[in-house]
Amino acid sequence: MQQSLFRGLYINIIVWDPKDVTVKGLEIIKKCSRVYLEGYTSILSCGAEALEEFYGRKIIIADRDLAEQGADEILEGAHELDIALLVVGDPFGATTHTDLVLRAKEKGVKVQVVHNASILNAIGCCGLQLYTFGETVSIPYWTETWQPDSFFNKIVANYQHKLHTLCLLDIKVKEPTPESLTRKKKEYMPPKFMSVQEASQQLLKIIEKHPKTCITGDSLCIGLARVGSDTQKIVSCSLERMAEYDLGGPLHSLIIVGPNLHPLETDYLEHFKNSYNYCWTQFASFGNGLLRTF
Amino acid sequence: MQQSLFRGLYINIIVWDPKDVTVKGLEIIKKCSRVYLEGYTSILSCGAEALEEFYGRKIIIADRDLAEQGADEILEGAHELDIALLVVGDPFGATTHTDLVLRAKEKGVKVQVVHNASILNAIGCCGLQLYTFGETVSIPYWTETWQPDSFFNKIVANYQHKLHTLCLLDIKVKEPTPESLTRKKKEYMPPKFMSVQEASQQLLKIIEKHPKTCITGDSLCIGLARVGSDTQKIVSCSLERMAEYDLGGPLHSLIIVGPNLHPLETDYLEHFKNSYNYCWTQFASFGNGLLRTF
Repeated sequence: MQQSLFRGLYINIIVWDPKDVTVKGLEIIKKCSRVYLEGYTSILSCGAEALEEFYGRKIIIADRDLAEQGADEILEGAHELDIALLVVGDPFGATTHTDLVLRAKEKGVKVQVVHNASILNAIGCCGLQLYTFGETVSIPYWTETWQPDSFFNKIVANYQHKLHTLCLLDIKVKEPTPESLTRKKKEYMPPKFMSVQEASQQLLKIIEKHPKTCITGDSLCIGLARVGSDTQKIVSCSLERMAEYDLGGPLHSLIIVGPNLHPLETDYLEHFKNSYNYCWTQFASFGNGLLRTF
Repeated sequence: MQQSLFRGLYINIIVWDPKDVTVKGLEIIKKCSRVYLEGYTSILSCGAEALEEFYGRKIIIADRDLAEQGADEILEGAHELDIALLVVGDPFGATTHTDLVLRAKEKGVKVQVVHNASILNAIGCCGLQLYTFGETVSIPYWTETWQPDSFFNKIVANYQHKLHTLCLLDIKVKEPTPESLTRKKKEYMPPKFMSVQEASQQLLKIIEKHPKTCITGDSLCIGLARVGSDTQKIVSCSLERMAEYDLGGPLHSLIIVGPNLHPLETDYLEHFKNSYNYCWTQFASFGNGLLRTF
């Protein structure tokens, strides 16, 4: 009998490229009997086929239903077989995976995590010091009847403590339509990914209701798109300007910059702002149709 | 002429194993003319020789002097050659690297960052939700005459906002001896890495002076050692107990747990605490002499 094993393989925040996996991770994938790809809390831009070809393994998409309700299916045979779950982003960012690990533990199945980058540390590429970020917030898509804004208080609190705020933007993948929720056969809405433009527009609407806070339309913010990919784009401007800015395809993240910048942070921002009229763009990737590269 | 390129290659927080590099990173390293390894803000446990063997490249150690003052040397010829700088941990955690990228930019040298894990996201493996962490703090080694404690206020502020605090612990590598600071030829102290035990002892001394704060000797904390390695250890207990706890070799990190836990976080902690009398240990790696594995 083989060593029992459930491995949660942690690959890049956005797998722009199958080669974002670590060598250690790749060796593990290649010896696994089943390889799942968690496919609903983030986005896999290169397509599962590219992964299958590079890894030499069939990829089973673990969608929302499978990851949330299919733990038994994922863990089946894990005492005798090596099984991998590829997660795009932080494996413990979503409670789903924490829950899955606990279930594995209950079944006596071993777990190994192979760490990799996620947006939480990759945002360092915008030049802001990672240690001057406060609590991370999530900005959800509003509906006509559900418009929560509690995350705004967290941004304000971070700002008051002289900290930057990373805003993770909503992703809707395999969301059942409201009409099909009560039916047996669910129907799904097309996937959508919040842009920095949409997030900024929502923030401006909240600011309208709270005009006396320290965060205003003039607040400096940074929009990041497709971090780590060849088409990465980073733009810094006022929140008001960001609300009009098109950074292209997903995934996007937004940073609300704190009030005080370290001299090196200022150098970074100034460097790019000056050369691009209040907009500075990515430095960490090579350009193909970018606003500016160097 | 080759495309001009300076690449900051970002490898794992602790390279326990040369295979922690991504496949993309490995391919870049293999075509670089010079490969530097930043070797003073963290620790490379596998040794540079193991990297050289696996990467098939000579590794040049960029120590404190080279990384801080030797930018010209690192960037020499970067318009014609591919050059890699391997960084253990966040490439933009240390201002040194931010500065280096700015210098590269001034010289018109292109930069690419290949992202990977760092302690900032790898700590998710302890079961606490990454989004409920506040500002990260650094705990420095005290001397007889220099005992700063401003980080304690940040821990308290995080706690008051119901957030966990990740404490990064001091590392002293290639530190000049005080006596040699004014001499031409510097002499260096042996490297040292703060343990969770030492950090907890310093925190208890600060608490003695501030007995009325929300952080006390009874506060729940988590000690992590060698995250991501085969010998990873995670222990949860009171700060007072942690001050007596030996987690073995470096690197260590300490988490001061916030006041409110998500039910899944509680499940994680309870699960391990119950089975090990107020101590729960790693779940994310395989055991070899660990307190407990599953």
